Amino acid sequence: MVANVSKKIVSLCKRRGFIFPSSEIYGGFASTYDYGPLGAQMFRNIKNSWWSHFVEKKVDVFGIEGSIFCHPKTWEASGHVGSFNDPLVEDKVTHKRYRADHLLEENLGIETATLSFEEMADLMKKHDVKSPEGNELTELKSFNLLVEAELGSTAQNKEKVYLRGETCQIIFLQYLNVLNSMRAKIPFGIAQVGRSFRNEITTKDFVYRTREFTQMELEYFIHPDEGDKWFEYWKEEMLDWASGGLGLPRDSFRYRDIPDEEKSHYAKIQKDFEFKSSSGKWFELSPLNHRGEWDLGGHQKHSGQSFVYRDPYSSEEFLPHVIEISLGLDRILYSLLDNAYTEVENRVVLKLDKRIAPYRAAVFPLLKNKPKLVSGAKDIFNSLIEKGYSIAWDDRGNIGKRYLSQDEIGTPSCITVDFQTLDDDTVTIRDRDSTVQIRVNVADIENSLR
Amino acid sequence: MVANVSKKIVSLCKRRGFIFPSSEIYGGFASTYDYGPLGAQMFRNIKNSWWSHFVEKKVDVFGIEGSIFCHPKTWEASGHVGSFNDPLVEDKVTHKRYRADHLLEENLGIETATLSFEEMADLMKKHDVKSPEGNELTELKSFNLLVEAELGSTAQNKEKVYLRGETCQIIFLQYLNVLNSMRAKIPFGIAQVGRSFRNEITTKDFVYRTREFTQMELEYFIHPDEGDKWFEYWKEEMLDWASGGLGLPRDSFRYRDIPDEEKSHYAKIQKDFEFKSSSGKWFELSPLNHRGEWDLGGHQKHSGQSFVYRDPYSSEEFLPHVIEISLGLDRILYSLLDNAYTEVENRVVLKLDKRIAPYRAAVFPLLKNKPKLVSGAKDIFNSLIEKGYSIAWDDRGNIGKRYLSQDEIGTPSCITVDFQTLDDDTVTIRDRDSTVQIRVNVADIENSLR
Repeated sequence: MVANVSKKIVSLCKRRGFIFPSSEIYGGFASTYDYGPLGAQMFRNIKNSWWSHFVEKKVDVFGIEGSIFCHPKTWEASGHVGSFNDPLVEDKVTHKRYRADHLLEENLGIETATLSFEEMADLMKKHDVKSPEGNELTELKSFNLLVEAELGSTAQNKEKVYLRGETCQIIFLQYLNVLNSMRAKIPFGIAQVGRSFRNEITTKDFVYRTREFTQMELEYFIHPDEGDKWFEYWKEEMLDWASGGLGLPRDSFRYRDIPDEEKSHYAKIQKDFEFKSSSGKWFELSPLNHRGEWDLGGHQKHSGQSFVYRDPYSSEEFLPHVIEISLGLDRILYSLLDNAYTEVENRVVLKLDKRIAPYRAAVFPLLKNKPKLVSGAKDIFNSLIEKGYSIAWDDRGNIGKRYLSQDEIGTPSCITVDFQTLDDDTVTIRDRDSTVQIRVNVADIENSLR
Repeated sequence: MVANVSKKIVSLCKRRGFIFPSSEIYGGFASTYDYGPLGAQMFRNIKNSWWSHFVEKKVDVFGIEGSIFCHPKTWEASGHVGSFNDPLVEDKVTHKRYRADHLLEENLGIETATLSFEEMADLMKKHDVKSPEGNELTELKSFNLLVEAELGSTAQNKEKVYLRGETCQIIFLQYLNVLNSMRAKIPFGIAQVGRSFRNEITTKDFVYRTREFTQMELEYFIHPDEGDKWFEYWKEEMLDWASGGLGLPRDSFRYRDIPDEEKSHYAKIQKDFEFKSSSGKWFELSPLNHRGEWDLGGHQKHSGQSFVYRDPYSSEEFLPHVIEISLGLDRILYSLLDNAYTEVENRVVLKLDKRIAPYRAAVFPLLKNKPKLVSGAKDIFNSLIEKGYSIAWDDRGNIGKRYLSQDEIGTPSCITVDFQTLDDDTVTIRDRDSTVQIRVNVADIENSLR
């Protein structure tokens, strides 16, 4: 599934410092991106908003910060070593690799979600599918998405490990330690935000599909009879956060029921949380999963450690089930840019929610060569920074150009110190979306931003 | 160098949810740790404090959030492929690996910092050094600390990459993009917080030396003539943050001059920033480096891309030099625990600064079976959470036990809703360090916490 990435957004991201391609000075490094100063600030805003909503405000959710390395058996127990595969073919001339399912969908319009790798291989042969360059392709091979690394590698002694393919496995590894140290009771959740790694070969979807990405995951441990109830609860919570917390329109989201034959190997019930991009196309942000006893059961079997929970009130014993609320931070960030990107009379206005925009406000001295204007503006700048706001400073060019420049990066408010400020201690505050300017007393700036 | 890790702290960390060994259910995974709920909150507090001090409050510093993967040539240009090595020997019986420099220092008291690997190999033979288990050792081998991973690995087509060995290289890769997109002028800085990876073989130093760790790095780009000035400036800034920002005593820090023969391969001037642990031993937190033109010069040579800067005022052209302000978040976190750990009459009080403690306060209803006390306490809890504070909740056991439990995890204030609260809207606030209780009006709780 492709996110219909807009070239205009990709270009804006690089030019204004949101997202840079990786390693450009060495010719680039496919499917890898670095967040520039403005993207890094959005990244932080999204992460903090998620953490506040799903961890800090929930009495029964505990956050952890786990390692990317863990014991390799983790990935056998999780099913990833056995089941986490893509169907791959390689161009015999260029040696570029492609996903057979994508080629079948794009070239022949064949829906592949329900097909086995063998069925795809047969169809590739039957239709004599060629690479996009027109060359012969190799036989379809099953391709594992876990990234392998080597630790302690002297020539004689190499230890193969996997970079985590999903953050949630660290949560399952530490389930017992969190339960015991926090004296938690079912139902409760453990959450984590962090990088995961996959051997993706699709390289045209910008930050929508990368080999390294940031997941925000919450695993909620429940009584086996309460799956439906908690699945519905978290379905609403995720929607509430994505619309209420990020300021995206509620009707730009939907849940899509995933039939049994399309589900992930660990899912008992799966609904994909989808976002409607500005192109009108829906694309997947993340699945909401009822993982049942897949994870604790798998780790119990592979480790010999019991995960059976004894209810302190009823004394009932059971293996907890898991509802997984997972979101890809990078996909959310792209969705926000896609939703915010607006062209108004040949100029770009990025209509980001004020809680998510890289800068909450910009502060300008009307003229950069008037020390009193500059020092007045600096005072306001410093006082807002001190209060925890992210604030831009601009003293270049004329005020009109500064507005356009801030509109393009989504800054909701521009505060200007002008000659009247020196007389009556008021500034102008100009609103990004309405372009209306109001005069506000310096002491009231913060209230006005709220 | 070993941090003299206290077993009491390691034990507290596991029992109360600060730091867990990785993958315990599979027998552990050496030199890898996961931060539990309380450690994760300290981790966030440290990171946010650093980011606020070094990025948000500095007009001339830009933050980025870069990938762990990057083009492999990066690590040739940086010198890591050639120079980032440890001298390794292996026990011929157990196949455990040891650092020859550590064995020479620990067994024979030989100072190895100035020795070449060849000289160490000679000394190992001359003194017939055995492994700690008393077995024969293999010949000393140079062992590269970069962790290798494989991407796109079909059997036919493997691409070897390195997990980043330091976050700063991503900063150098994106130097030009940040310069251009932010229209920055020398001097300016680029900062990043993120994971780095090293093939460490020492496994006894808790989170002080791990195979995966979090760096907080700021690379400050300057005119070549201004090295001394900016080195001094950032030397003070780092000290200010570590003492003022984290609440650690200023005299528990020192800078140690590193002679030329001990310096990192990239350093022009190096001073190690050291912390005095409770054992009285000084240990290294991080080096402060004048990296000169090592990095931009190296990448310029390997990429063919020019990094020459043209000053917009003087038109002078030069290759910028770099001052590096680097801190290991995990070492800082351990230092804070080490400094805070206090035993008072057989009980533990963790005297963490209120800005760093996992919870700013705890809220208790005096009795859990009185609904009015519980709902009053819940209101206060929710209102503080809503204001962005991290707050603990406890309604178990008696009030004395709850105080002891919060003291042990460093919670500065405990707020109790009791029967008097229902009459006059006041609560008790009990201070961790003085154990003094005061009565405060509910409306004044937040002021009192500040």
